[in-house]
Order: sequence, then structure tokens, then C-alpha cells
Amino acid sequence: MERIQMADGLSFSRIVHGLWRLNEWNYSSQQTLDLIHHALDKGITTFDHADIYGSYTCEELFGDALSLEPSIREKIELVTKCGIVLESANRPEHKSHHYNTSKAHIISSVENSLKNLQTEYIDVLLIHRPDPFMDPEQTVEAFTQLKAQGKVRYFGVSNFKQHQFDLLQSYMDEKLITNQIELSPLQLENFEDGTLNLCMKERIAPMAWSPLSGGSIFSSQEERAARLRNVLQKISGEIGAESIDQVMYAWLLAHPAKIMPIVGSGKTARIDAAVDSLSLKMNHDQWFEILQTSMGHDVP
Amino acid sequence: MERIQMADGLSFSRIVHGLWRLNEWNYSSQQTLDLIHHALDKGITTFDHADIYGSYTCEELFGDALSLEPSIREKIELVTKCGIVLESANRPEHKSHHYNTSKAHIISSVENSLKNLQTEYIDVLLIHRPDPFMDPEQTVEAFTQLKAQGKVRYFGVSNFKQHQFDLLQSYMDEKLITNQIELSPLQLENFEDGTLNLCMKERIAPMAWSPLSGGSIFSSQEERAARLRNVLQKISGEIGAESIDQVMYAWLLAHPAKIMPIVGSGKTARIDAAVDSLSLKMNHDQWFEILQTSMGHDVP
Amino acid sequence: MERIQMADGLSFSRIVHGLWRLNEWNYSSQQTLDLIHHALDKGITTFDHADIYGSYTCEELFGDALSLEPSIREKIELVTKCGIVLESANRPEHKSHHYNTSKAHIISSVENSLKNLQTEYIDVLLIHRPDPFMDPEQTVEAFTQLKAQGKVRYFGVSNFKQHQFDLLQSYMDEKLITNQIELSPLQLENFEDGTLNLCMKERIAPMAWSPLSGGSIFSSQEERAARLRNVLQKISGEIGAESIDQVMYAWLLAHPAKIMPIVGSGKTARIDAAVDSLSLKMNHDQWFEILQTSMGHDVP
Repeated sequence: MERIQMADGLSFSRIVHGLWRLNEWNYSSQQTLDLIHHALDKGITTFDHADIYGSYTCEELFGDALSLEPSIREKIELVTKCGIVLESANRPEHKSHHYNTSKAHIISSVENSLKNLQTEYIDVLLIHRPDPFMDPEQTVEAFTQLKAQGKVRYFGVSNFKQHQFDLLQSYMDEKLITNQIELSPLQLENFEDGTLNLCMKERIAPMAWSPLSGGSIFSSQEERAARLRNVLQKISGEIGAESIDQVMYAWLLAHPAKIMPIVGSGKTARIDAAVDSLSLKMNHDQWFEILQTSMGHDVP
Repeated sequence: MERIQMADGLSFSRIVHGLWRLNEWNYSSQQTLDLIHHALDKGITTFDHADIYGSYTCEELFGDALSLEPSIREKIELVTKCGIVLESANRPEHKSHHYNTSKAHIISSVENSLKNLQTEYIDVLLIHRPDPFMDPEQTVEAFTQLKAQGKVRYFGVSNFKQHQFDLLQSYMDEKLITNQIELSPLQLENFEDGTLNLCMKERIAPMAWSPLSGGSIFSSQEERAARLRNVLQKISGEIGAESIDQVMYAWLLAHPAKIMPIVGSGKTARIDAAVDSLSLKMNHDQWFEILQTSMGHDVP
Repeated sequence: MERIQMADGLSFSRIVHGLWRLNEWNYSSQQTLDLIHHALDKGITTFDHADIYGSYTCEELFGDALSLEPSIREKIELVTKCGIVLESANRPEHKSHHYNTSKAHIISSVENSLKNLQTEYIDVLLIHRPDPFMDPEQTVEAFTQLKAQGKVRYFGVSNFKQHQFDLLQSYMDEKLITNQIELSPLQLENFEDGTLNLCMKERIAPMAWSPLSGGSIFSSQEERAARLRNVLQKISGEIGAESIDQVMYAWLLAHPAKIMPIVGSGKTARIDAAVDSLSLKMNHDQWFEILQTSMGHDVP
């Protein structure tokens, strides 16, 4: 599979596997390990986590699988996130939902992630959401310490707009290596407000969360979704796709920003569909037909 | 006429003549040549085109006139644009309306423009619209090749917001030399959203399209247009203008950004009115009265 | 009191006293002098003015007090502003409300401020509002002349968004040293649109005007204000504040941007309340509860 160079010593598989619903799949550790093997066989080596996924349970489920075959660790890239505080039975000390990007919270969150993932290092740590209360000096102090200790190799952000990215970057010596943002034919905000352009300008490849818009496109009766579904279906035939999810992946993959879609499915067939979409070609007419159908009007 | 230095070896006349409706004027080549001579006599040396104007016909009509007196070429600056794909009987291979800023499309578009304009070089080539599917590396490869071949001297953009401008500029060694944007007393968007400020910050003079808002100000019964028309009429008397179009030009010309209005008329009287507006003076009270009348409220 | 380093040779007290309603307090010069002494005793040394406050009267009222004890001048920092033109019986030559950031207007405005404040220098001059008709070359020429003459030590802006800040800064050799913006739990615009982040990125401490939202929080029956008032009241008890205005100050003071609230009261008790809020501590849960109550929804 195509790989994207993220930093001097790090590359990602173009398709990333996302574990945010791992707890809902009711897999045994062996079944999760089998899924990881399936992904690896297909060329997917990059796995996306967050401390909070599954109300703080998904990292541990993944770590339990990893512990069955520790040698896999060196063959994969682990991304995880921190900075959101959720109320959870698994975190009784949390009294409210808020953000925390203080040095103490980031370091404590990473320590938990390392333990839960049963690994000695995170490849990339992302700040999960822009924090209006962020003290960038503290955040970067945490980064510096975690890097020096070998606990985190690289740092990035998620859902950051330009001013939030520029602020944090201005306090760092190293470059933020990615911005994980929502991108799909149904979610154009980051195409329109300059966030995707920011990534290209900074020469960083974005990770795309919810590349299928959470699946609403498949069933929604809403006019916009229905209209787009029809066009995706038509183009599916034109480009030889097997399903409209492949067309949505192909739409993102065709963009020059080197978008890396995160596939959040536990089903091997859906993972395979995503991987196979890498071979699909989309021309300008088709790319803009999807864009304009989603916008509901022509470009000017 | 005042001239604006656009780059080391290039200046524009402060008033630019626009040819986007040339095909509607039903002029013979000789009549078009006469119009060019009239503009030149008034000091207008800069002519604004796009590949798509008149459904891909205006460049050729201008080129036919130019061919009657080829020595004019060295006395004028030709601006043209590329990047929009229109469905047209003149481009049967176009299957849909979209943007294309690929290397192949830009080069092919410029080759057509050179042939149609009957010239060996374009002074300034603009990307007509920000293309959400733009691969800036490809776009800049086209620029580099066209420059090396002597086919295009300088490059700019049109309708670009800050993030779009910054992205393309970040891939270029040379500076983009202008941003052609919509500016008029009725169209304040680029005043308000930072686009005009971007031009000043980059020290590039913007070209203003639709400086008269397409003429709607003259007849519209809409409340805002009527309200503004009354104020323009009043200020017309105060500053000694002959018509409200002169007041609208004077409003743009008074701004320190060195705005170059594009006059898109085929009538010599309207061209003369624009040129004569260069001698009108507008004070702060008058400038803000027009702004505030257009906004519908006072500045804070 | 904590002090904020604003430039190499200048620091501000963390709490600033604002004189924009000085004319409404009906104080004799001696009473105003007493108020200044009270502020100084509490550690407040920075006083915020504008030419236009009190329809061009407040600077003079302050200057009259200062003239009773001229030695105070060296113990305080004077901030004033220019750039707004108001119709006023005190400025019969003003024909309309507009902005003027021309060299002549700025210099004339500062000359008036020096005379009214009975001082030989202004510590910081701010452009009061972003002027869409600003010629930054002229504005900076005025700055350069005023600095060379020793009439103004440093320059800043007020209510500037990023593109306005970047434009003016791009014409200056020195740094703009502050941006005075509206910030309060009821006014989140500058938190959300990147203006506060700009200040942090530029390493400049913002001054906050209307930190209590003009007092509407205390009495408004509007749903949002009532909802926020309840939460402020609750947190007041949690953190040991004496009143909800202290909680609002504490919310701004807790933010890492080094926000300097401007207290615009002529009552010593209200000034003391602001100063005492410096000792209050607010945790993440509380800070976000206020934010989210004001927004009317949770952070994502």
C-alpha cells in the first residue's frame, strides 16, 4: 500500500484503521488480534486511538490483543490523543466534561495510554480538540518531556483551525506532523474554511475522521444525503467501484492533500473495500459533481 | 494616466479595460481596434480577458482587432485567466462546469489564449477562481514552464481568499503579482473579510471587477441600492462628478490599496467617465457616508 | 500587584483602571486625584483613556486632577486612543461619525491628548478601531514622528482582528505591544474567532474592555444572562469570591493569555473587588462551566 512520509523517521499507511468503536465489536483479544493481522496483510499499519474512546476502554482492549503477539508492535504505528476530559465510570475523579491540555493532564493521559496499549511508546500523540483554555507553554513542556523520555515520538493536533494551529506551533521547535480533521463528501467545512489548505501549506498530510460521515449517507432520508447517494451510485458505476463507500474514499484519496482516511470498521469486508478504493481513479468532472451535489449548487 | 508598478518590469494603467462582454457589442474588428485606440488615447493600456469570456469567443475577437495593427501589442498589457471549465458549443469536449488547475489544462488554456489573442506572450495570467481540487505543485509547474518558454511573464490570482492565496504562494519562488477581486460600494465582502487587507499586506495592487456592481445601482428598486443611489447622487454634486458611476470609481480610487477598477464598457463615453474620475477627490466624511449607507449602519 | 511586561521599558499593572465614564462621576479634580491615589495604593498604575471618552472631555478631567500633583505622572502609565471621529459640541468641525487614521489626524489627536492630560508623553497610543480606509504608511509615519519627538513611547491597537493587525504590523519596524479587545464571560467573540489566540501567538498581552459586559449580567432578565448569573453565583461560593463580578474577573485572569481587565468604575469598592479577584483560583471544571453556560452548549 502507498505510504505517506509523516516525518523523517515515520511513515503512515495511506489507509488508517480507527479503533474508536472497538468496545462495541465484542471481540475477544484473539479476534482483535486477527483483525490487526487482517489489516496488516492488507498493508494497513497505522492504528488510530484516543484515551477517551469507548469511555476510556478501547486502548486497553487493543493492548490486550497486542500482548498476545508483542512482536507486532514494531510493525505498526500507534496514534493516540489526549486533552478531552469525559465523565465516565472509568474515571470517577472526572467531575465534568471539559478540555485539559495542562502539562500534568497530558503526561498522566499518556502514561495511561502506554499502560493500556501495553507499549513503551506512542508514535504520534494528538491534542484531540482545540482548547480555549490552553496554555501553550504548558502543553509544549509536556511534549518536550514525553519526547525526551522516549514515550512519544511525534506530536500533532486534531480539529484545529488555522489560528489554533499557528498558536501551538509558534511555541514548538519541532513541527506538528498532522491535523486529524473531519473530511467527507457530506462534511465540507474543512474544505471551505481553509483548514485543508492550511495542511497543504504546512506540507502536512491530514488524517480524515468520519470519511463516510458516520454512515448516514447509506440510509438517511434527508434530501441532501439522498441526492448525494444517487450521484455516488452513478459514479460508482462509472469508475468501477463496488459500493458507494469506495466512491467516498476515492473522492478523498483523489485530492492532492494526501488525505489519509480512517476506517473505523471491525468488519474485514469494509476494511478491504477501503483498501481496494486506492486503485480507483476519479476525473475532474466526477470530483466536482460530488462536490457540487453536496453543496447543492454549482461552483461560481 | 497614473500607472501602478506591478512588478520589476511591468506597470498597469490605473484604469483597466475589461473585455468580458466584447462579444455582445457586435463590433467589427475595425470597430474593436478603434475602441482600443480610444482607450490608449485616454491612457488605458491594460486589457483584461479570460479564456471563457463570451463562451470562449472574446479573446479571439480582440485578437482579430489586434491583427489589424500588430504594433499595438507592445503598447499594451494583456491579462487573461484560466482554470474554469465551461460547457460550451465552442468546447464540445467539456462535459460539465468545473475548475481545472492541472498543469495540462493551464498550458492548453494558455496556448489557446495565445492563438486567439494573436500574441506571443501574455503579460499576466490569473487563476480565475480558487480551485478546491487544486494541486499547487502542478499549477506551479505549469507557471514555471510557461515562464521559461516566454509565453507568460507574470502570474496572479482572482477571487482568492487569504488561505487560498497563501497556499499557492507557498509553492512559488516568484510573487503572485495581483488578486483580481470584486470591489464596489455595493459589494463589501472583500473589504470586510480581510481579502483587501491581504493585498495591502502583500504589497500587491488589486484589480476590481464589477466596480459598478454590474450596473444594478442605476435601476434597482431594492431598498439598499436605492438608498445608496441617493447618497451617491448627493456626493456627486459635492465632488463635482458628472454621474454616480464616477462617484463609485472615485470611492475605489480614494482607497489606499491602489485598487485598479476594470471598466467593462464598449462605449467611449463610459470609458471616458471612468478615466475622468481619476481627478475627483473624496474626503473621509464622504468615503464613510458611502460605506455606512451600503452597510446600513454606522461603524461602531 | 502582579505586573505584565509590555515592552523592554514598560510594564502594566495586571488590573487597569478605565476612565471612559469619568465625566459621569461628577468628581472634582481633588476627588479624581483621590481616586487615582486609591488605585495606586492598590497597585493599579495603568490608566486607560481615549480622545473621545465623554465626548472629548475625560482626558481633560483626568489631566486637571493630575495637575494638582504632577509628581504622580512618573508613577503611572497612560494609555490613550485615537482614530474615531465623533460629532460633538466639543468638536464643531466634525461633520460626521467616521474613522480617521491619517497622519494629520493622529498627530493632531495626540497633541490634544497631551494638552488635555497635562503630560509630556503618552506611554501607549492605540488605534481605537480598525479603519477600513486606513493607509498604513500614513499611520506609521505618524507613529514614527510621535516616537521621535518623545510624545508617544509605544503603539498598539484596539478591536483589531488578525488581518487588520497583520496589515498594520507589516508596515512597522517596532512591534505593536497590545490589542485592547472586548472579553468577558458574556462576550466570547474574541475567544472564538482567533483574536485572543493571535495575541498569544504574537506574545502580546491583551487589555480587556467591558470585562463585566457593561454590567448587564447583574440585572438582565434575558435567558442567557440569567443562566450565567446563576452559575457565577454558584462558583462564587466555591472559590470564595465576594460577588459575581469577582468571578468574572477571575475567569479572565485564569486564562493563560495574561488578560488585563479594565475596571471602569469610579467607586473604590468596585476597584477593590477587582484587585482582590487576583487572589482567586479557578479550576478547569469551573472555567469550562462558565464557558459552556455562556455558549449554551457543551464543547464537542
